[in-house]
Amino acid sequence: MKLNIALLAGDGIGPEVIDQAVKVSDAIAKKFNHEITWRPALTGAAAIDAVGEPYPDSTHEICASSDAVLFGAIGHPRFDNDPSAKVRPEQGLLKMRKKLGLFANVRPTFTFPSLLDKSPLKRERIEGTDLVFLRELTGGIYFGEKGRRDDGETAFDNCVYTRAEVIRLAKKGFELAMTRSKKLCCVDKANVLETSRLWRETVQAMEKDYPEVEVSYEFVDAVAMRLVQWPNSYDVLITENLFGDILTDEASVISGSMGLMPSASLGADIGLFEPIHGSYPQATGLNIANPMATVLSAAMMFENFGLQAEGKAIRDAVNSALEKGIVTEDLSDGAKSYGTKEVGDWLAANI
Amino acid sequence: MKLNIALLAGDGIGPEVIDQAVKVSDAIAKKFNHEITWRPALTGAAAIDAVGEPYPDSTHEICASSDAVLFGAIGHPRFDNDPSAKVRPEQGLLKMRKKLGLFANVRPTFTFPSLLDKSPLKRERIEGTDLVFLRELTGGIYFGEKGRRDDGETAFDNCVYTRAEVIRLAKKGFELAMTRSKKLCCVDKANVLETSRLWRETVQAMEKDYPEVEVSYEFVDAVAMRLVQWPNSYDVLITENLFGDILTDEASVISGSMGLMPSASLGADIGLFEPIHGSYPQATGLNIANPMATVLSAAMMFENFGLQAEGKAIRDAVNSALEKGIVTEDLSDGAKSYGTKEVGDWLAANI
Ligand SMILES: CC(C)[C@H](C(=O)O)[C@@H](O)C(=O)O
Ligand SMILES: CC(C)[C@H](C(=O)O)[C@@H](O)C(=O)O
Repeated sequence: MKLNIALLAGDGIGPEVIDQAVKVSDAIAKKFNHEITWRPALTGAAAIDAVGEPYPDSTHEICASSDAVLFGAIGHPRFDNDPSAKVRPEQGLLKMRKKLGLFANVRPTFTFPSLLDKSPLKRERIEGTDLVFLRELTGGIYFGEKGRRDDGETAFDNCVYTRAEVIRLAKKGFELAMTRSKKLCCVDKANVLETSRLWRETVQAMEKDYPEVEVSYEFVDAVAMRLVQWPNSYDVLITENLFGDILTDEASVISGSMGLMPSASLGADIGLFEPIHGSYPQATGLNIANPMATVLSAAMMFENFGLQAEGKAIRDAVNSALEKGIVTEDLSDGAKSYGTKEVGDWLAANI
Repeated sequence: MKLNIALLAGDGIGPEVIDQAVKVSDAIAKKFNHEITWRPALTGAAAIDAVGEPYPDSTHEICASSDAVLFGAIGHPRFDNDPSAKVRPEQGLLKMRKKLGLFANVRPTFTFPSLLDKSPLKRERIEGTDLVFLRELTGGIYFGEKGRRDDGETAFDNCVYTRAEVIRLAKKGFELAMTRSKKLCCVDKANVLETSRLWRETVQAMEKDYPEVEVSYEFVDAVAMRLVQWPNSYDVLITENLFGDILTDEASVISGSMGLMPSASLGADIGLFEPIHGSYPQATGLNIANPMATVLSAAMMFENFGLQAEGKAIRDAVNSALEKGIVTEDLSDGAKSYGTKEVGDWLAANI
């Protein structure tokens, strides 16, 4: 396969972890006979510094004309204390999601047996957890009309969803459930919100097209509880943008493997793949960041091209690195640890 | 003191647990020389059955002319599968909050040493947790304009906040922080929402009036994570209605003592006090429900009247019941357990 991949390294440790994912992907390409053209582009604080905005048109053109986007991390502390600043890295993120049509954010939470003890939860609560959130990413209160009135004394944010938006996200949820345990949970607040009632009635109407999928409907507050109590009772969960923002982050810390979790954002055409962790500014350039989440994001990318064997080869390499202790210091528990680059080298060599 | 207390027992186990709180409160009144007049009124499914609506005017009149409301639980399974039904117990709840002006929901999460092992979290994560959420309860997306357009194909919910609404909630937060460890966390999503930016700028402007309080600002998704990771790093948290709904429920399960957590909803004049647990329909009438959360809600009620010694007497009785194993079966761990009524009798006798 010939693949054009836009490469958005971003800020902080982004460039370092992206380098390892490139190395591992190139090893995959060599082994499975693919040809990857990497197309670097600016984003985040790095782009603000260079051209004054976090998702410049030039970057969009590269992304839109590629087969996929591999993304590092964005964010810089100098933007943290002023959420109302005119130009912020987050705005680039939202603009990118919207312009690339990335309406489905796929966020798995799974466990690695060797990392179970890192979970804040007791072992018996977390063991066997393997769930996936599909978060709607280009609608809802994030993108509705917002502003002030009464001389700035009143603020408003409008949450809007159309049935078509719910259908396209839910469809991905049903399809994913069919490839897994055929259980789908629709998360909403239908006892209070009209948008949630639209979500619920739309998903209910789709049930007949997927007779094998068992669908449950739960309120967002109940899910926030059960995720901590019995995370392994969930499989595929679908939800709107803001609920998804909160719940996927909550889910990410329960596994003990947060630093290893990949994600995908899918649209009609191209997908974007990125680790869920941030840009860890304080680790920048120190060769200590864990590259595995980014490497596993590359695995999701191959799988999304239908290249399952390629994805599995990456996952196998990560699993054996974990077993053999070829890990960065966040996972070494005081034993010998390896640098970002060395872990990447080992993974590439073991493809 | 002469106290008129509206008594809204509600559905399911509501009446049973309320009975125990009444018994304990009467013991307090006797010991401390107060005079309590209990004024029962209908609410929830019970009110729907009797008069066709969950918060009838007659109930509102009783509440509005009392000094406080003691509330059991509402909800009945026959309403659960149809969130769009015309008459639902939840609507009564929202109407009650709005009409009584209960704008501040106070939701503590604390631990009892003897119950730590019931937490899904590891002991070292949860030990020492003692936090309080102040959730805004009569504004935001719960009460904004909502509806459909395009022949029902598009749904919307409007989230609206005024500066005055933020100020009155935040004021309670600052004041509470002053009586505790002087740490306040403002939870918002100011990197995306205009209402959150109004929250943040308003709280920032209030900091100068409380120079001793150390204020932090965190995004709701980050809080959803840290609540699971390091719950004991929080003290007082203030937030808007929907974030509060999700986060207070998440917080309630981390302690291992969920069945014991009380809450208060405060307004300009009167307060409402209720356990955070639901109506447990399947336990109705079995004399097995744990009355301690409701009894502790009565403690919050006395404290809210400035009657600290009365509140403490109740808390002490609960603590010694826990130590002595005078508990319902949910807490007995296979050892001898007591009925709802017997636990209530013991607590009243030990005031
Ligand atoms: C940075 C922020 C705008 C973003 C979001 O809320 O979507 C982030 O929290 C995420 O989940 O990707
Ligand atoms: C029942 C529901 C309307 C209510 C809410 O969302 O406020 C409940 O979840 C709560 O937190 O009291």
